[in-house]
Amino acid sequence: MATSSTLKVLGLSGSLRRASLNTALLLAAKELAPAGMVIEVFDLSPIPLYSEDVRQAGMPESVVALRTRIAEADAVLIATPEYNYSVPGVLKNAIDWASRPPDQPFDAKPVAIMGASPARLGTSRAQYHLRQVFVYLNAWPINKPEVMLGGARSLFDDSGRLTDATARGQVADLLAALAAHVGNLVRKG
Amino acid sequence: MATSSTLKVLGLSGSLRRASLNTALLLAAKELAPAGMVIEVFDLSPIPLYSEDVRQAGMPESVVALRTRIAEADAVLIATPEYNYSVPGVLKNAIDWASRPPDQPFDAKPVAIMGASPARLGTSRAQYHLRQVFVYLNAWPINKPEVMLGGARSLFDDSGRLTDATARGQVADLLAALAAHVGNLVRKG
Amino acid sequence: MATSSTLKVLGLSGSLRRASLNTALLLAAKELAPAGMVIEVFDLSPIPLYSEDVRQAGMPESVVALRTRIAEADAVLIATPEYNYSVPGVLKNAIDWASRPPDQPFDAKPVAIMGASPARLGTSRAQYHLRQVFVYLNAWPINKPEVMLGGARSLFDDSGRLTDATARGQVADLLAALAAHVGNLVRKG
Amino acid sequence: MATSSTLKVLGLSGSLRRASLNTALLLAAKELAPAGMVIEVFDLSPIPLYSEDVRQAGMPESVVALRTRIAEADAVLIATPEYNYSVPGVLKNAIDWASRPPDQPFDAKPVAIMGASPARLGTSRAQYHLRQVFVYLNAWPINKPEVMLGGARSLFDDSGRLTDATARGQVADLLAALAAHVGNLVRKG
Repeated sequence: MATSSTLKVLGLSGSLRRASLNTALLLAAKELAPAGMVIEVFDLSPIPLYSEDVRQAGMPESVVALRTRIAEADAVLIATPEYNYSVPGVLKNAIDWASRPPDQPFDAKPVAIMGASPARLGTSRAQYHLRQVFVYLNAWPINKPEVMLGGARSLFDDSGRLTDATARGQVADLLAALAAHVGNLVRKG
Repeated sequence: MATSSTLKVLGLSGSLRRASLNTALLLAAKELAPAGMVIEVFDLSPIPLYSEDVRQAGMPESVVALRTRIAEADAVLIATPEYNYSVPGVLKNAIDWASRPPDQPFDAKPVAIMGASPARLGTSRAQYHLRQVFVYLNAWPINKPEVMLGGARSLFDDSGRLTDATARGQVADLLAALAAHVGNLVRKG
Repeated sequence: MATSSTLKVLGLSGSLRRASLNTALLLAAKELAPAGMVIEVFDLSPIPLYSEDVRQAGMPESVVALRTRIAEADAVLIATPEYNYSVPGVLKNAIDWASRPPDQPFDAKPVAIMGASPARLGTSRAQYHLRQVFVYLNAWPINKPEVMLGGARSLFDDSGRLTDATARGQVADLLAALAAHVGNLVRKG
Repeated sequence: MATSSTLKVLGLSGSLRRASLNTALLLAAKELAPAGMVIEVFDLSPIPLYSEDVRQAGMPESVVALRTRIAEADAVLIATPEYNYSVPGVLKNAIDWASRPPDQPFDAKPVAIMGASPARLGTSRAQYHLRQVFVYLNAWPINKPEVMLGGARSLFDDSGRLTDATARGQVADLLAALAAHVGNLVRKG
């Protein structure tokens, strides 16, 4: 947990595509972060496919880095597409690695979830599956606002910048809610 | 679809671990297959992490092989552990690859789901998430029996053979139900 | 199952409101039914709250009627709103009654699901919960099309008639898919 | 919210049966409540089936009472069976009533969930559906422990008292976790 007044948020994108809408959504979040919040994005592409045999032989460096960064963050911000009505395998695989012993860095961690999709339902099904995952991990995802950007291609400009004012407002509201949530949890400690 | 009387079933394990209980469960299924059913297991370990950029550059060979094998099979048999109350990222990642254009080989495909876990609830939460995935894919998972083997370590011997009689009966029942299901769908064609 | 060529479909609305959009959706389905399909709507308002004590004292008449009508139907067509991100208690309560021994009339029953909602996500979360219910009941809901009418108030005229052409097309497609589904299952018998 | 040091918890049972295991579980919770916690059970049987027409004509007295009691409680404790792999209609119907305007008494309310079932999976599927409901309601269900008592008939004696020591320990742990959760939220205010 942060001891200073800076609120450190770790951003994870569920898509490895360079031009990913969801990675772009994290970049928008960096722009829109309230005063005192710093968002850094961790790139999931070096995380290998999970295998318990690999873990027994030694946690891969990229996984150690992911786990350390989650543990050090005051909160985690997830931007996820929806594949096949659920969480992308790539994102779930990273969470599977992060959750393994000896430590479980999501324990009691505040989480905010958002997602962008070309489809109308805007990643809602993936987000509800993620919420069930966070019950197991004993993380604390905030309930509201739910940022589910459907028809999302038109919300970004050609350079990948989120330009839609309503969507930008939703992201800003999510970050404000996350900051308040972390503030409450820190204060209680 | 098979034109002969042999029913070709493709087995997929949600775990890459060599001593995986779920891979062992597929081996048990091979032993227990009813007359006329042949189960072959496809190893998911060469499937890379999904990235749309990689796909655009050309479907990886292992993915092409997976898609071809699903398309040629009369049915798919999944044996999955449960990680973090959902589908393992490794299995979901393979499904994400398999589902991408130009073809979608799960379309109208009969599917049977089973799972083994050391935990009491025996992979049920992963199985219900998988069922939602199959709504999108328009596959036809059978409803019953639901094979959710909890406390599963004691059901296998030291060589990894499923020895528990009740569990063996459940797997045999699942395969019989799958055969009947495929039979109905083939007959209707 | 119907022995004649008429396909009997029982419609259930998840809302008891007289001006319910979902009851109106069932009326639209009656208009849009393909040749040979007859849709009758069963009113759930007389079904009491479920209590096992009441059941032991004798199945209420309204429940007996519901169970008989489901059993006699070739398929069930559900039109449901979404309350609190899940199935309305009213609809779930009727299903709870229908599912109790001695018979379970949903067993192997073809089902189609649709829903209308003022909200954007258009009952999708209720529909996925319903699909899990139907795994237990061993019913056969069709996968596609998924009719989830969001922003639905504007799709109906003041008299409650579904007037939106796209929505009418979706309902017609759902009924055609249901007819094909039942046809396959009947032929196999 | 409580202004004194007493923590007021409202218990709701998802079953109307007089000899309900889940109502009995609430009675066990009353016995096992930690110092300073008072649990009162609200009987859902007078709550009518939800209809918006009825609500427009005036909230029924039983519903007003339920809403007031939820609003006045520091936390809600739910004991629910699982019917057809989901939340009982009776319980969902009560929540549907409670959630309607003008007020929404579950907003920001701490919640604990438990359940007893003769079946092995012990109400887990109902509990995960309930958790999705609480996302909409912006309630705060605690993640752990998850009290899912399978094979539950043998855990109670003939008078309906919870006698199984492990199960009693789980209920006590749940109440302690709920008290800590409320304490944190109250302190932060």
